[in-house]
Amino acid sequence: METIAPIGLIHTPIDSPKNAPIQPKGAAEIKGTIEVYPQFAEGLKDLEGFSHLYLLYQFHLAQRTELTVTPFMDTVPRGVFSTRSPLRPNHIGISIVRLTNIEDNILHITGIDTVDQTPLLDLKPYIHNFDSIEQSTSGWMQADAETVAAKRSDNRFL
Amino acid sequence: METIAPIGLIHTPIDSPKNAPIQPKGAAEIKGTIEVYPQFAEGLKDLEGFSHLYLLYQFHLAQRTELTVTPFMDTVPRGVFSTRSPLRPNHIGISIVRLTNIEDNILHITGIDTVDQTPLLDLKPYIHNFDSIEQSTSGWMQADAETVAAKRSDNRFL
Repeated sequence: METIAPIGLIHTPIDSPKNAPIQPKGAAEIKGTIEVYPQFAEGLKDLEGFSHLYLLYQFHLAQRTELTVTPFMDTVPRGVFSTRSPLRPNHIGISIVRLTNIEDNILHITGIDTVDQTPLLDLKPYIHNFDSIEQSTSGWMQADAETVAAKRSDNRFL
Repeated sequence: METIAPIGLIHTPIDSPKNAPIQPKGAAEIKGTIEVYPQFAEGLKDLEGFSHLYLLYQFHLAQRTELTVTPFMDTVPRGVFSTRSPLRPNHIGISIVRLTNIEDNILHITGIDTVDQTPLLDLKPYIHNFDSIEQSTSGWMQADAETVAAKRSDNRFL
């Protein structure tokens, strides 16, 4: 139905989806840049006041869909919608990153967990009043933040 | 480039994008259901342990793109990427909702702010360790939670 087209590219030092951080929490010190194509640069106005952004991007290396996957943080097969696996029906990912500064159409960010050259679909501000959930439960995902941060990907989703 | 296709439909009592809540925080008591198309139901396994979900969906009523918009919560024109306006280049929205329970391919949710019949693109679990940002700043968006909750949409994005 609807066609989506990238608004830019995410540049990172992660050149392979193997042995990569599996979430921004595992990439806290990783710096990257977002190149927003010049024709969309007008839309970046006022963004610099926000410390964190949602990136919506294409899992462009995902070649197939699997409705049941074994997540990096687990040993048990799970329904794909209960995971962040790229092998979902629409290959769209989200990551929350820290925005450092903006120069023209280039955003400098930290805490980026995507591979280099990932096509960017959208940027949205992280707004504490909208996006922070005070009380939540996380199902099968019981690993603590340190374990998630230390985990690296393998080739299961390639 | 890539074509995306809905995995289901969001059913809500909100039948118009006018006079609607502008965020899930303004829709805390609004109940809805998500109909996941049967061919994707296998992917819902294990989701019920999560209290909150990200919905990725199409702003299917958005007919155009505007790179500068005046948000519902402001009187000043802002770059669209610093807002949650539907008039962004790719018409994709995200909302965090509370999951009550799942019956087969039907998810019962509360806190839904989309109009009825919104096409669903993806479901992702909200995971506190990944998604909660302890310290953040929210730029121009300084309204408190109560003000956001009370705000209703008008026709500016139609």
